[in-house]
Formats: sequence, structure tokens, C-alpha cells
Amino acid sequence: MFKIVPIEGSIEQIEGIYCDGINAGLKERDFDLGFIYSNEPFEIEALFTDNKFKAAPLKHYLQYESNFKSNFILVNSKNANALTGKVGIDDIKEIFNNLNFNFINPIMSSTGVIGVRLPKEKIIKGANSFILNNKNGLNFAKAIMTTDTYPKYQAYEVFIDKNCSFKIAAVAKGAGMIAPSLATMLCFIATDTNIPKNEMKKALQYGVEESFNAISVDGDKSTNDSVFLIATKKSNCYKKEAFFETLKLIMQDMALKIVSDGEGAKKSVAFKITGAKNNNEAKKVASSLANSLLVKTAIFGEDPNWGRIAATIGASGVECDEEKLKIFFEDILVYDRGKIYFDKETELKAAKVMQKKEFSIKCDLGIGEGSFTYFGCDLGYDYVKINADYRT
Amino acid sequence: MFKIVPIEGSIEQIEGIYCDGINAGLKERDFDLGFIYSNEPFEIEALFTDNKFKAAPLKHYLQYESNFKSNFILVNSKNANALTGKVGIDDIKEIFNNLNFNFINPIMSSTGVIGVRLPKEKIIKGANSFILNNKNGLNFAKAIMTTDTYPKYQAYEVFIDKNCSFKIAAVAKGAGMIAPSLATMLCFIATDTNIPKNEMKKALQYGVEESFNAISVDGDKSTNDSVFLIATKKSNCYKKEAFFETLKLIMQDMALKIVSDGEGAKKSVAFKITGAKNNNEAKKVASSLANSLLVKTAIFGEDPNWGRIAATIGASGVECDEEKLKIFFEDILVYDRGKIYFDKETELKAAKVMQKKEFSIKCDLGIGEGSFTYFGCDLGYDYVKINADYRT
Repeated sequence: MFKIVPIEGSIEQIEGIYCDGINAGLKERDFDLGFIYSNEPFEIEALFTDNKFKAAPLKHYLQYESNFKSNFILVNSKNANALTGKVGIDDIKEIFNNLNFNFINPIMSSTGVIGVRLPKEKIIKGANSFILNNKNGLNFAKAIMTTDTYPKYQAYEVFIDKNCSFKIAAVAKGAGMIAPSLATMLCFIATDTNIPKNEMKKALQYGVEESFNAISVDGDKSTNDSVFLIATKKSNCYKKEAFFETLKLIMQDMALKIVSDGEGAKKSVAFKITGAKNNNEAKKVASSLANSLLVKTAIFGEDPNWGRIAATIGASGVECDEEKLKIFFEDILVYDRGKIYFDKETELKAAKVMQKKEFSIKCDLGIGEGSFTYFGCDLGYDYVKINADYRT
Repeated sequence: MFKIVPIEGSIEQIEGIYCDGINAGLKERDFDLGFIYSNEPFEIEALFTDNKFKAAPLKHYLQYESNFKSNFILVNSKNANALTGKVGIDDIKEIFNNLNFNFINPIMSSTGVIGVRLPKEKIIKGANSFILNNKNGLNFAKAIMTTDTYPKYQAYEVFIDKNCSFKIAAVAKGAGMIAPSLATMLCFIATDTNIPKNEMKKALQYGVEESFNAISVDGDKSTNDSVFLIATKKSNCYKKEAFFETLKLIMQDMALKIVSDGEGAKKSVAFKITGAKNNNEAKKVASSLANSLLVKTAIFGEDPNWGRIAATIGASGVECDEEKLKIFFEDILVYDRGKIYFDKETELKAAKVMQKKEFSIKCDLGIGEGSFTYFGCDLGYDYVKINADYRT
């Protein structure tokens, strides 16, 4: 038994963690450079993109031996330092070599345009102006934003018993459609729990499956996607189940914030699949729906076009049968195993569901016990505008 | 040796083929019902969608024994008769039972909205008004259009020697983005060549790989996609190589017309991949690029954002290495094996390429000998408009 209590703020709530964000001139006005710092080294684990062209900061991180500790993460937005070759890694080293404070095993994380070298001078100058004993998680969250429309963070305190409690907090960025394309997702999670190092990666892998992996299709990966988990271990308290579940919860919080801030998105939709042959097939259906341009534009148009949903299921390659399929908008049944319940009245009810900012589309395949929920959003004019104009 | 000569018109050029299109009231004004008719039965073969939810007309066709002959194809737009269950097939039979002329093994083909039953009365009344000895391929091409902005057809005469020639003609519709979603593609190809029945399917399969399968992703399939090949055999002439190549050519003509008429699309882009591990991996890369929302919107914005191209290649799952990759806009090299050739001058040149209505993006992976060319288009505001408004 344990109790999870949301608390104000973000990673600055974790004892030992200092953080802040500033404008270093990469963007015209907004914050673009942030840091996470600790007096004492923290344990760290990370999950990275599967993209074959990993960005320079990921390669730089991967040069450290496993089980290394760090006490400094430098994050910039506006420039991804990706596809920049060996000089991209050299640039990171040169930046760290020119900072006038001490740290061990520094880490860099970047998001922004691909294929442009970092503006080293600006970053060095900016980082040298950091006030290292600040605790400003909101500024850090702002500094890592690209097309995000708001900073994303969350913090919890977890009570195991009266002598044992720990905190966990997260900051994330990401506002592309994420799936099916390449907008970068960064997430920094900090905790004071006394987690054994060898359970950190397992915890991340447990959490990611129903959070970040439920908003982006298998195989779609930006060059920079990263999830970091850092543990200061300032609390003596650790309980595996409580930590794993809270970590998953906070990762889901971040994932949902990313979906609901999808570029130009106005609606957040949960695609709830049940009755698939197995969970894997359920996920395949759910992700096909969340990524279908025709489904996304129908959602934008608030058109309960269940035919496009059915056809997308049929095209997804999973075992299915139109005589076994049911489709609901929330609880409005529109298609029931070969029968179309779609008179004017039902259509109006379903259209009303779609006018909400958040709703679910439920599909029961009637084949087996597999289920999965995937989160997506609509695709409207603003998505085109943001992405046609992004770089230039 | 053989000579292919384009000729005017479309399927009405084939001896024995009659065709026309009319407005039967499914659409407000435009043509919506068409037919292909022949006094004598023709040989027929078809390739259908892989979608698990095949539309009623496909199921109806598949009830015939293999090697059946037909002399009548009825095609409607506006309603796909898909996901309509058993009654969808019964509706087709009822329509044919109420026509006041003779035919054998009639075939139906439909495109339009999914999940709505056919307006049988309108179709019966319309079909009974057909003038069966008309030869109006253009009207037929118009009758099968949905969001197409122009009718799509082509005809060729093929000369083997002075005693041997045949004709082939095609009519198609399709104007969704096709890939990665579900817009229906229909194609009707007629020939007078004396092809043996058992070579017809092979010919279709040969042609489809580098035509319709090079504009739509593996696995994406509408409920209604169909390619029909009908042979009246009025010419004594047949030569396998000449027919296979001309069939492929005319299928490519149709595929390219569909791409360039992509919903709201203003640009047609050839993604030419070379140097992949094998042809399969080349196709995987090419289709990933053609289907990437970020690449499509960059093309719409005329932004030579090669970073998105590189990142999409890295995410596609194929063997690749940023130290071996080259990226060109037409012949403008922007990224060369780890080096970025993207000064202001190059960027302007590349942007100029992208202002064209048709251009190619070439990527050499530098790994092996695999190559594939895939055709795609941009994604702009009009795509959203068309698809948010389509049904209602």
C-alpha cells in the first residue's frame, strides 16, 4: 500500500537538484538554455531513440562507461545538434571545456533544427551566467520548449508509511504530432528515492510502454528522443512497486501533456481497443487509428466518420472480422457486428461527443482478450502552418 | 522490338468495348454512374485491396468461379458499399435483377463513403437509362471520380510488326493522399490483345509493383481498391514482353496522375533511393519519406529541410550510416557523408528546386546496390479542408 500525492512545482522539489533556464540568444526572446545541477553526483539512466542517426548529444552520453555518475545536464532548444557528424560531438566537448565551474561527467541534451552546428559561443556565454544554486523548474521547463505552447511538468510525493516517503518530478517537452513523425520528445525525471542503480533502467522500461510508447508508433523516432531518470538518493525510502507505478504515472502525465499539445491540435483522443487477438494486435490497431490522416482530419472536422475507423482497422493487418467488430464514440454505439446503428439521431449524438476537447473512440474487435489504449490528436490547418514554416 | 504510340481517348478505343457515364442522382450534379459493356463476353482479371474489410462489390466479384467471363461492369461513385455486411451484397444482386437489358456475370465497382447502403432505386433507374452502344470513355472516367479534380485516362497502340498490333487503354480514379491512408483507387484497363487467360494475372502483378504499389505504402489499403484488366481479344496479336511493358507503362501513367492529383496537392515528388542494402530496404526508405508528415509539410512550405529527410531515413529501420549518406534536391548536393553542404547559396538553389511543380529528392545510402523510386506529394491546407469536410 502506498499513497501518491501531487505536489506543486517540478524537479526543483527534489532535494539536491538545482535547475534554471535562461535566454542565451539561440532564440530571439524565449528561454533556450537550461541546466540540472547537483552538488553531489546523481545516479542516471536514460532511454534513447531507435533512430539510426542518433544526435551528437546522445553519442556523447553513450561514450561514458555504464554506471557513470554525473552532476550536470545542459539542455538547449532551437538546435538539435543532429546529423552534424564527429564535429557535433567535438562541439559538446569544447562547450564543456570552456565552462568556468566544476562538474563531473557532464551531459548535454538538445532539441530543435537538424543539421546545423551548435552556436558554441552563445551556449558557453549563457552557461557561464548560470546561477547554480537556483531552483527554478519552471524556467528549466520553458528553456527546453520548441513548438510547445506551454511548459510541461509534474511532481508527486509518495508515502509508503510514516517513516518512508520519497518524491518524484518530471519535466518534458514535445509538441509535434510525435507519431507518426519526428518531433523530438525530451523528458527529465528526478527522484530522491533510494533506488538501486540496477533497477533504474527496468523502471524506465516499465514506465515507457504505456506512456511515451503509447503516443508514438513503433519505429518512429526523432534523432534526439531521450528520457532521463536521475536519482539523488537523498531519501532513505524506496519501495519498488510504489516507485515503478508512480514513475509510470508521471510518464503518462507527460505523454498526455505532449499529445494534448500536439502541433496545432485542438482535441485529444483515446483510442481504446479491446477484444483483439492479443495486446500486440490491439496496439497495432490503436496506433494505426491514432496515425491515420483520414481519422485525424475527421476528428478535426468533428465528423463521426466511423467508416474511416473501420477501414483503418481493416487495413492495419490484424485479425478482424466485420461481423464481430463494434465501434463506439464514448458510449454511443455506431457499428455493431455488421449492423450500422447510424440513424440521424445517433449521428448527432456521436457528433456531439466529437465536439468535446477530450473523448474516446472505442473499438471492440470481438476476437480475443487483447487490449491497448493509444492517445492521439486531430490534424488541422495549424499543423500544416507550423510545419511548413518551422525552419525558415 | 516493339513500338508504343500514345493515342487519343481511352477505353472506348478498344474494339468491342462500350462505355459511358451519367448522373443518376447520387451526386447533386456531377456524373456518378458509369458502365463498361461488351456484346461478347470478355476475359477479366482483378487485383483487390488487402484490407480485411473488403467492400461488398469485391465480395460479390469473388463469388464467381475463377475463369468466369463477363460483359458488364457497373461503377458508381459517392458510395463505397463497404462495411455494409451481407445486405451490401444483396443490394448488388437486387440492382442487377432489376436491370432491363441482358448481361452475363455482371460486376459492380464502387467508391465513396463507407458504411452507408447503396441508393438502389437511383442506381437501377440510372442504369436502365444507359445507352449501351455508346463509346464515351471520358464520361465513364468522370462518373468514377470522387475528390479527383480531373478525369484520368490514357491509351496506347503497340506495334509488334506490320501484321501485328494491339491497343491498351486505362481509366482510373483516386486522389486521396493514397498513402498512407485509405482513399480508394480504382483502375479499369481494357485491351484487344489476344492474351492467354493465365497470363493476365501475372501481367497485373508485374505492372502493379512499380506503379500503384510505388504510390501507396505496404499495408495501407482502402476497402475498395481494385485494378481490373479486361481483354476482348479482338486483335489476333499478342507478344508477352510488349504487353507486359505497355501494361506497366499505362499503370504508371495512372499512378502518377493519382499522385499529382493528391487531395490538395500542388507538387509531385519522386523519392529516388539508391545505394540501399537491397531493393526492399530502398522501398522502405522511399515510402517512409513519401509518407512523412514532416517531409510532406516541408515540401508544401518549399523548405529544403534536409534534416527531416535524413531523420526520416534514420527512423525507417533500414541499414544506414550518416557517414555514407548523400542527399540531393534534384542535382543539388546538400548533405555528403557527414558533411553539410548547406551554405546560403546552396540553400537558395535547393529552395528553387522545390518551387517546381515536379522534382526529385535523391538519397544515396552508400550501403549496397538496392534502389527504388516512390512517388509522393505535399500536404497542405487543402488536404485538411477536403478531409475534414468530406463526408458531411
